[in-house]
Amino acid sequence: MQKPVSIQTLQRLPIYLHYMKSLPPEKSANISAKTLGSALNYGEIQVRKDLSAVSDGGKPKVGYCTAELIQDIETYLGYNDVNDAVLVGTGKLGSALLSYEGFRAYGLNIVAAFDSDPSKCGKDASGKQILPIDKLENLCRRMNIKIGIITVPVFSAQCVCDKLMKGGVEAIWNFAPTHLSVQDGVLLKSENMASSLAVLSKHLSEKGRN
Amino acid sequence: MQKPVSIQTLQRLPIYLHYMKSLPPEKSANISAKTLGSALNYGEIQVRKDLSAVSDGGKPKVGYCTAELIQDIETYLGYNDVNDAVLVGTGKLGSALLSYEGFRAYGLNIVAAFDSDPSKCGKDASGKQILPIDKLENLCRRMNIKIGIITVPVFSAQCVCDKLMKGGVEAIWNFAPTHLSVQDGVLLKSENMASSLAVLSKHLSEKGRN
Repeated sequence: MQKPVSIQTLQRLPIYLHYMKSLPPEKSANISAKTLGSALNYGEIQVRKDLSAVSDGGKPKVGYCTAELIQDIETYLGYNDVNDAVLVGTGKLGSALLSYEGFRAYGLNIVAAFDSDPSKCGKDASGKQILPIDKLENLCRRMNIKIGIITVPVFSAQCVCDKLMKGGVEAIWNFAPTHLSVQDGVLLKSENMASSLAVLSKHLSEKGRN
Repeated sequence: MQKPVSIQTLQRLPIYLHYMKSLPPEKSANISAKTLGSALNYGEIQVRKDLSAVSDGGKPKVGYCTAELIQDIETYLGYNDVNDAVLVGTGKLGSALLSYEGFRAYGLNIVAAFDSDPSKCGKDASGKQILPIDKLENLCRRMNIKIGIITVPVFSAQCVCDKLMKGGVEAIWNFAPTHLSVQDGVLLKSENMASSLAVLSKHLSEKGRN
């Protein structure tokens, strides 16, 4: 039943999921595309289209069974599988991500972290291993790690990215504010805070002119 | 010379900027749309269109003057103005953002942070004031703060968002993984890590099936 979906749909699915899980179960056995749409500011047709990728569809006048829809989205997104990941760079942002318990709910398990600073190696506050960077490639290969999270400064991000790919990593989650080159078959998802800030500050400068 | 641009263009502008700033100045006095496009994996026409919003255009066979283009993008994005912001929630992620020096380069200045836990109030390691949450609305109004950064847990995110808007904030940068409602005229930009993770894990599950 898996249909190909757009990246936009893929990015909205966790938002539907989160919203439905926030509802009181006793009041929301069923939910309509209209209700979801108006709560989340999406058009009803958009919601229907998004959900058609993962669900057999709601019933007229009843909507979707909420529990089933939650299950369908979780299965579709692979939240029931667990993906092992490594994190490279244990500065403030890296440490924050490392200790964030919520990732497991999304099927992400950070098994180890790496840092180039030997004084940071050992166990961190959350009990995760921090290893020297020269063990990175080998550990990824040995443990069959497929996700690498990059939280190092800009000047070493490409070098870390290359090491992860050499270790067999197929999906890179990059928090360094720079462009990275990846080989074919490797997915790069960058969190670009500068892009977000551009949107915010443009909004303010436009309001200021009006 | 300010033309309205799409949000996608707006989000790419900092990426062009970052790339051009990473080039050795002596080798890159001029840059073409083609060069930019192939370095960043965007089509040449896309690049031309994006840059037409901020620049008078490159010259045939020469391209854009790199220094001028950098200046034009920075002016357009308002990086030369400084926007004062407050941050609410000084957990690990909040502390990481609070101590991040790089925001000033993008025109963002976090003037104070807030937390509901009195034991966290005082000065943080980076010297920024952490104030009790009941001072939030008043300080925003008094200091004419326009940007609020939310790094609190999901259950209190909407309440913090409402307080910020009451204080006159017009742009909200939300890191809590939940949907927030904002009034007309207020821009909400959410960093949704769950959406990013969905894209990554779907890529891996598709590779696994092939």
